[in-house]
Parts: sequence; C-alpha cells; structure tokens
Amino acid sequence: MKRDVYLSDRPLEEAQTGYMELLQRAGALNPGRPELVEVEKASGRITAAPVYARVSSPHYNASAMDGVAVRSMDTFGASETSPKKLTLGEFVHMVDTGDPLPPGCDAVIMIEDIHFVAEEEFEIIAAASPWQHIRVIGEDVVATEMILPGNHRLRPVDLGGILAGGVTEIYVYPRPRVALLPTGSELVQPGAGLKEGDIIEYNTRVFGALVEEWGGMPIRYDITVDDYNLLRERLKSALAGADVVLINAGSSAGREDYTAALIAEMGEVYTHGVAIKPGKPVILGLVDGKPVVGVPGYPVSAVLGMDLFVRPVVYRKLGSVPPVRPGVDCFMSRKIVSPMGVEEFVRVKLGRVGEKIIATPISRGACP
Amino acid sequence: MKRDVYLSDRPLEEAQTGYMELLQRAGALNPGRPELVEVEKASGRITAAPVYARVSSPHYNASAMDGVAVRSMDTFGASETSPKKLTLGEFVHMVDTGDPLPPGCDAVIMIEDIHFVAEEEFEIIAAASPWQHIRVIGEDVVATEMILPGNHRLRPVDLGGILAGGVTEIYVYPRPRVALLPTGSELVQPGAGLKEGDIIEYNTRVFGALVEEWGGMPIRYDITVDDYNLLRERLKSALAGADVVLINAGSSAGREDYTAALIAEMGEVYTHGVAIKPGKPVILGLVDGKPVVGVPGYPVSAVLGMDLFVRPVVYRKLGSVPPVRPGVDCFMSRKIVSPMGVEEFVRVKLGRVGEKIIATPISRGACP
Repeated sequence: MKRDVYLSDRPLEEAQTGYMELLQRAGALNPGRPELVEVEKASGRITAAPVYARVSSPHYNASAMDGVAVRSMDTFGASETSPKKLTLGEFVHMVDTGDPLPPGCDAVIMIEDIHFVAEEEFEIIAAASPWQHIRVIGEDVVATEMILPGNHRLRPVDLGGILAGGVTEIYVYPRPRVALLPTGSELVQPGAGLKEGDIIEYNTRVFGALVEEWGGMPIRYDITVDDYNLLRERLKSALAGADVVLINAGSSAGREDYTAALIAEMGEVYTHGVAIKPGKPVILGLVDGKPVVGVPGYPVSAVLGMDLFVRPVVYRKLGSVPPVRPGVDCFMSRKIVSPMGVEEFVRVKLGRVGEKIIATPISRGACP
Repeated sequence: MKRDVYLSDRPLEEAQTGYMELLQRAGALNPGRPELVEVEKASGRITAAPVYARVSSPHYNASAMDGVAVRSMDTFGASETSPKKLTLGEFVHMVDTGDPLPPGCDAVIMIEDIHFVAEEEFEIIAAASPWQHIRVIGEDVVATEMILPGNHRLRPVDLGGILAGGVTEIYVYPRPRVALLPTGSELVQPGAGLKEGDIIEYNTRVFGALVEEWGGMPIRYDITVDDYNLLRERLKSALAGADVVLINAGSSAGREDYTAALIAEMGEVYTHGVAIKPGKPVILGLVDGKPVVGVPGYPVSAVLGMDLFVRPVVYRKLGSVPPVRPGVDCFMSRKIVSPMGVEEFVRVKLGRVGEKIIATPISRGACP
C-alpha cells in the first residue's frame, strides 16, 4: 500500500458543485423507479407524479350548515318587520351539515336564524339567497383536477386532500437505500467490553438516524476489519444492494486507510480531501454509477461530512433539495482565528444578552 | 336527545389555558411510565431521565493524529537550524489516529512534520510539547458525567453521544396513545363506492399522520354510525386502551351530534364551542382522567382544532412543549374582515414582491 500523506485542498463549494455534477452526469442522482403506496401510509414521502382527483369533492350538492333546506324563491320578502312562515314539506326539509340538498331546494337557512312557532312550522326574518350555505359539487376539487404536483413532500393534510379526491394509492419515489459500512480493526459494537484501543462503533448509528430523517433507508453492515480484500468484497456487496454507499472511516491518510485506494481501483475518486475543518479527509467517489463516500471517523467531522456531502445526494435522489436551515445573525463572544485556506465550521452556544445574540465557540477538540 | 343549538363563545386563550389547567389537575397531562428502548432506535424519542456516561470517552489516552508517539523530553531542542534525529524504538512508535498511547510516551508528532531519513529513522524540526495531539481519557465525556438531561428530544447526533458513553439502552417516555373515533352514518371508508350523501372518511387519516409527527401513536377505530349507545360503547373501549381520545365529528349542534352529551354523561365538558373561526364547534372534555376532544368535521376546522387543542396535549404528555412555528411579517393583499367576537384564522398564500412579502387570503369556504 502506497501511503498518501497529503490530502487535496479543494475548496468546499467547488467540491460540492463538482461532485454533484459528476454524479448527475453518471445518472447517480436519478430517483429510483416509483413505487405505489397506500395514501394513508404516505406522510413524509415524495410524489413521483402529479396526483389527479378521481371524484369531485363534494361529489354532490351538500348542505354547508345545520338548518333548513328551502327554495330561495319561497323566502323572498321575509324581513324583521314582516317575518315569513314556512312549514316542513316537499321543498322545506331539516338538514344537517353534509346532507345532500333535497330535490328542488336551492338554499339552506342556518338553524340559528330560525324560530319554530309550531312542531313543523317556523318563521324567518330574512330571505335566503340562492345557493347560500350550500357546498356545490366540486367546490373543493373537481374530478380530473390536479390535487398535488409531483416532487411534493406529503404533509398530513395532503393525505386528506388526496383521499377526498377518491384516490387511495399513489406513486412516490422509493427511499434511497444507503449502505453504511463501518470499518476498522479497532471498532467494537456498542455494549461490548472495552480494552485499550477499542472504539465503540456508533458513527453508523448516527448516520442511520440522519438518513432516516432525510427520507432514506439505511442498511447497516457489520464491522469490516482493516483488510483491503475484505473491504473490497464488502463494498461490492453493498453496491449490489444500495443506491449510495458510505464507508466510515478509513478516510484520513493513516496506515490502514484503504478507502481512497479501493474507490480508485473500483471506480473514480473525485476528491480525497476538502479544504474544510473539521471534515477535511472526506473522500467523494463514484463506483458502478453510484455515489461512494468515505466519511471521516471523528464524530464531529463525520456529521459535518454527512451534512455537506451526503444530505444533498439523498434529497436529490428523492427529486427534492434539502430545506434551507434557519440562520441567525449573532455577535462572537471572542475572536476566533481559522487556519489559512480552510473554511472552518465552529460549533457555538447561543445566548441572548439584551437585544443581541451572543455566540460562544465551544472547544474544538482534535478534529481533522 | 335535547338539541343544543348555541355553542359557547369562550375566547381561544381562555379555552386553551383553562383546558390545560383542568387536564393538569386531573393528572391527564402526566407522561406514562417510562419505557426502556435501544439507543439506536431512539431518535426522535424523549428522555424520561438524564443519561449518565458508564465509560469515559476516550476510555484510554489516544493519539489524536496519524504520526509518531514520543517522549516529549526526547524532542527538546529540535529546531529548523538544528533538527533532531529519532529512531523507532521503546519510546518512539508509529501511531494512527485513535491508537492507544504507548507506555512511556506523552506526545504525538504529526506525520506531516516528520522527515524520514532512513527506514526507522527520522528528523524533527520542532520540539513536541507534553500531551500534544493526544486525546486524554475522558476528553469528551468522563464516566458518571451527565450526557443528556431528561425531557430531551433525541437528535441523531445524541445517539452517538450516548453510545460513546457506553450506554446502549435508555428510558424514554412512551408515545401517547391517541384513539381516533370517526363517527357519522354518512361516512364511508376511502375507496368505497360513493352515493349521494356519502362522505369519505379521511379526517382520522390526517389526524393519525399529525399524531405520529408529534411523537404520539394513533389508534384508529372503525366508523361508528350515529347511535348514542354504540358511540358510548366505543368511547369506553377507546378510553381503556388509549391516553387521549378524539371523536370526529359530531361536534357541531346538528341533530345527530351526540358527542357533547355523551362526554357530559360520562365525564365533564369543559367547553363546547370556542370563539374561533374555523373550528368553533370543538368540544374539550375529560372522561376517566383522560382528555376527550370532539374535533369538528370540516377538514380545515378539524386540522386547526387538532393544532390548537390536541398538539399541546400530546407534547405535554411527552414531557415537552410544542415547538414555536416560524412566523413572518407580511402585508395583506386586500382587507379582510372577521366577524365580531371571533378570532379568525385565515389561510394565505405568500409571495415576495420587491422587498415585501404579500399575503393573499385564499377562499374561506364554509367552515364553522
């Protein structure tokens, strides 16, 4: 194994744009084949095509209020000074909200506006205008109308809109399958007894939860010890069953860091190293038309690498883009200096002092 | 059945505060008995107690860099003008990031700062200060230290922090079980053939997705036709198996609106009617020490009622409070007038025109 001591200093924006362009050209960002799912289980999924109404909503003329359905012409002339009497009968019916409009009726008078003077007789003090308090056919949605566009992330209320349109199954993009390969002879599973040099393998658990949050489906592999051939077999198998592969770690320039060499052998390394801190040793690669990312081993570097390079891939494979994070203008509690030529991400604690928001950097630790 | 035509005009804030106080006094907002879950499945859950580290992280003195572990005193005096030669041996060892510090060594020199002059011999041009590039035991977390407080919603990164502390199972609050009771002889399940007067039952599907989003566990019941005794049986069974019961709809003042009468018979109606639009006919009740809410039937009223009255209950039962929604200042595209004495919620479309954000109200339809 040749030892590769120096990493690339590719600027962040160039690395992000260039990598996405490479993936785009390779078709690695295309969503998978749409899958048909039950609407009521589709919250959070992304529509793969517009959804059209099969039935109108309402699908009949319906009373919009509890009250009395009438022919509006029978009510003309009613006023406070000369109330009009109506008797329940062919064109005068008690109705509840949602009831179909009885044949011949064209208006509803609210129950609150009615004074019963006998069992079946009541007075009104205002005329009903035609179609008042009626929800006409298709008021909300007309059959064949588009309810939702494609590439739309479904919110709970959207499910109601789709079901109201008589649609019970829709096409959504499949969740991108993201294989997580923890590597390193020093790794042990959580809960194992610890001896000096053992590292608890928790990074891929964090990755898994992140991938789920973004809408993907994590597939975690067992730990691979530091053995080039073993890792090659593992990567092949991961590529066969996933859309994206993350290798953690083996991304820095240490003795057992095979990842970059392996990706170069099996495909293409777009960059090994980005001019950021933490997260510098990230590897962005492409194998068999699929993104393969070497995520750094340090937890903070790892999470930042996931955020900067993997999150956009998962969203793009869902026909979407990552939501913009809310930001806040703040004042630094003390000056901080970053190394030359490196874009640094500093974690801070925010506090409000008077009108100002003050950001206090937390200890940076040793994160390459 | 007595017919209750007029609903209460209780102001929104009073209804919200008063109902929560009533529930609080009845113990109806207490979280359930904490449950033990695997950390790696706990993303999004809420800690029921603080989480303490069982092991330190790192749990041994570890190299923070790829390089050479040395005794710092052996390096004193090295400079660019008089480099110092070192040979791999008892107190000079090649190390990778994360490796345990070899006995006797107290500093690490980065690989980038080393010039090999022979197979086992290299030069340095600067002294190593004691403990440089070493992650000392407990640098991140010391055993017994609190990793996370109670009542904390777990983010993906939190899972890493907990696992790093040697903890694999934690206590979280149980998801509040929310029973959803669709009622009404006019309701049909999605996908059924439709005849005049049929309403597709989709509200409880929306409620279910909302409850899941908030961290609760929805339990949807079959449709109950308009029959007081049937609904009483259904409510009893729901109360036995859930922490919160939502009845939809039967909350307005129509002929078949049994909900308020039923809640009054079995427990207490805090209010039937709130001075809001839409959503006015909501029923806030308490039966067997559990919140029972009559959610209006109109979809927009229903979702607003869920948001104003059910969301806070679910969050409180999780030892939490609902997150504040982001807001935005905007200009109305036209004047809108709300009825006197009613707090109105108007759905708008937002658009940016120059520097201003313009809100255009969308049609209000007929929503009581």
